[in-house]
Amino acid sequence: MAQKYTRFIRAINTHLTTNTANPPRRAMKLLYPTSLAFNEQAITGFPGLTLHPYDVKAPIPDALVDAEILVTWTNTNLADAFARMKNLRWIQSLAAGPNDVLSAGFATSSSLTITTGSGLHDRTVAEHTLGLLLAAARRLHEMRDFQLQGKWPGHLGGPQPDRPAGSFRTLRDARVLIWGFGNIAKTLTPHLLALGATVRGAARRPGIRDGIEVFAEDELPALLPETDALVMILPGDPSTDNALNAERLALLPPHAWVVNVGRGSAVDEDALADALDAGRLGGAALDVFKTEPLPEGSRLWKTKNLIVSPHAAGGRPQGAEELIVENLKRFLAGEELKNVI
Amino acid sequence: MAQKYTRFIRAINTHLTTNTANPPRRAMKLLYPTSLAFNEQAITGFPGLTLHPYDVKAPIPDALVDAEILVTWTNTNLADAFARMKNLRWIQSLAAGPNDVLSAGFATSSSLTITTGSGLHDRTVAEHTLGLLLAAARRLHEMRDFQLQGKWPGHLGGPQPDRPAGSFRTLRDARVLIWGFGNIAKTLTPHLLALGATVRGAARRPGIRDGIEVFAEDELPALLPETDALVMILPGDPSTDNALNAERLALLPPHAWVVNVGRGSAVDEDALADALDAGRLGGAALDVFKTEPLPEGSRLWKTKNLIVSPHAAGGRPQGAEELIVENLKRFLAGEELKNVI
Ligand SMILES: NC(=O)c1ccc[n+]([C@@H]2O[C@H](COP(=O)([O-])OP(=O)(O)OC[C@H]3O[C@@H](n4cnc5c(N)ncnc54)[C@H](OP(=O)(O)O)[C@@H]3O)[C@@H](O)[C@H]2O)c1
Ligand SMILES: NC(=O)c1ccc[n+]([C@@H]2O[C@H](COP(=O)([O-])OP(=O)(O)OC[C@H]3O[C@@H](n4cnc5c(N)ncnc54)[C@H](OP(=O)(O)O)[C@@H]3O)[C@@H](O)[C@H]2O)c1
Repeated sequence: MAQKYTRFIRAINTHLTTNTANPPRRAMKLLYPTSLAFNEQAITGFPGLTLHPYDVKAPIPDALVDAEILVTWTNTNLADAFARMKNLRWIQSLAAGPNDVLSAGFATSSSLTITTGSGLHDRTVAEHTLGLLLAAARRLHEMRDFQLQGKWPGHLGGPQPDRPAGSFRTLRDARVLIWGFGNIAKTLTPHLLALGATVRGAARRPGIRDGIEVFAEDELPALLPETDALVMILPGDPSTDNALNAERLALLPPHAWVVNVGRGSAVDEDALADALDAGRLGGAALDVFKTEPLPEGSRLWKTKNLIVSPHAAGGRPQGAEELIVENLKRFLAGEELKNVI
Repeated sequence: MAQKYTRFIRAINTHLTTNTANPPRRAMKLLYPTSLAFNEQAITGFPGLTLHPYDVKAPIPDALVDAEILVTWTNTNLADAFARMKNLRWIQSLAAGPNDVLSAGFATSSSLTITTGSGLHDRTVAEHTLGLLLAAARRLHEMRDFQLQGKWPGHLGGPQPDRPAGSFRTLRDARVLIWGFGNIAKTLTPHLLALGATVRGAARRPGIRDGIEVFAEDELPALLPETDALVMILPGDPSTDNALNAERLALLPPHAWVVNVGRGSAVDEDALADALDAGRLGGAALDVFKTEPLPEGSRLWKTKNLIVSPHAAGGRPQGAEELIVENLKRFLAGEELKNVI
């Protein structure tokens, strides 16, 4: 990576240290999206760099198609950008999972680096996930169903057994498995521990991360039967397709809940709905789906003990400017960027 | 208090150090409820004390009416106990707010001490409160309403503005005021801080508690307008009756939420419903009500942006045995008990 940019940076530096013999060359352009509140001030001060706001829903203006750096957020113009922006050297997506950039045709190459917004959604997604886990444990959805009928759900209130075996009614002493143990999982974990849960992780590489034991996927057959709540935070790529399939669902105890805030492609939705409708699983709270919005006729709307959340966990990057500044410094120094795909 | 028991304890010790001249007197009796899983083993080893399980829904058996110590939990036999148990010296309720004991006629006197289960519900109630706060901020109830109609609530998902002014959409940077800053509040607070909220308290006595600034109630006119989420954890006694009245509700910003997990008597329910229906308040999540179960015809079932939770926060004492052992030691030593009303 360092090598990759050496020539490019050398060329830029040549422009910046112009002498009178070389007429000054134009500055490098960074395009930033107007689809979120953006503090341009935080990014000023880089010599030879100019900043340009752009509309993510319209074709890239002719005057900006020669930009080297594109920051993306909720773009619908990426196919146009792919066709016309021939100078691009670096795309900084603000999404944690920039599937849109890849679908438009962009790919990391010797001349283009794509970086994700992983880290910008840690707190928002962790908070929503915590909310879904508590709603599941405390049966807030069921309370709502009763409320809408004007009925008091007495079975959910009043004196209760305390943490009976084979139940998921509280995070205290609950065994939580987080599958996809990246930035969001690391932010979520301390909240779960503070509430008394025990937390384990699953990811590609095993090892201890932030004090949590993370297992490789070949350990899932041993982990899933010991899980009260399975939290899925996997990215959406071919390697995670239907990761939670019928076979793995069958390994969860019948009281276990599944919470998915990663990508819908990682769950076999039909196998999940079958397990729920048959009462072979405690419940599921899904923030992401194979097709979004969830289509009108989908069986998931009415699946027993299923909570539908409309991809609401993240959707508001926090700290985008800091990430861009950090990556700009690295980019200009010819160093490896953060969050390279 | 120490004085109060001196005579009593001296009398007991006389029994215990029996000599041949005095025929051995019967041991002191502690009655514990069978309405929860109770580890009798944890309480053995007190000389001169015998432990007796009893049914909280049936009259106290004749052989046990002479007991000195009664542990209560979800009793319906307290009027009977009040009429027939003439030897009672100490009632240990496992409820944080033992309104049932007081309603039955018992009152602390020179010969009877009543202690609460405050502390046994900290984690359960704090967890439920956190769940209600997150459900409110993330609009999980509204998502559920859409789900039941098979409709995708697009306005609650996808790209969102990040923490816009005048909103309660996340605990990050939210200004939370906890009114009733006792054991439950102290357990809840670290979770709120960890999610990025700022927390202040209101109680009878002002001061710093656990690092949180707690204000007296005369400061409420200044505090309420600066509150995004008001959490009420007041006990139900005459001093808190309708504490949250129309006047104080009007001081909250129109986006603010009210969460009540203390006692329903502390909220003027009609004033709250008026404010909600008129859109003068963001929403409310109530776990407690003036009348429970909430009556069928109550307007609260259908009040806009109101979440009905069926007194589900606590209801499962945790650590009852430890509290009883601690208080037994103090009782036998003639010391002030924990949680005296
Ligand atoms: N619902 C929402 O609103 C929302 C918002 C933001 C993000 N997301 C989703 O959340 C995902 C995770 O975000 P993040 O920032 O936490 O990502 P991250 O830091 O890149 O972590 C991804 C984790 O997934 C693991 N992983 C990747 N492929 C895997 C595979 N085939 N099998 C097992 N584990 C695999 C990685 O394992 P290693 O650590 O071993 O590499 C890593 O632990 C994003 O990709 C995005 O799709 C959703
Ligand atoms: N929803 C449920 O399932 C559930 C479960 C358990 C308990 N509860 C309720 O929660 C209540 C609180 O429990 P806790 O264990 O936290 O009690 P606690 O430790 O005794 O704390 C009570 C707090 O309320 C304050 N307070 C009392 N009277 C007041 C008044 N008139 N004005 C202002 N503040 C007043 C006290 O102020 P000072 O500190 O200044 O004395 C104290 O901060 C219980 O009484 C019970 O009603 C509900």
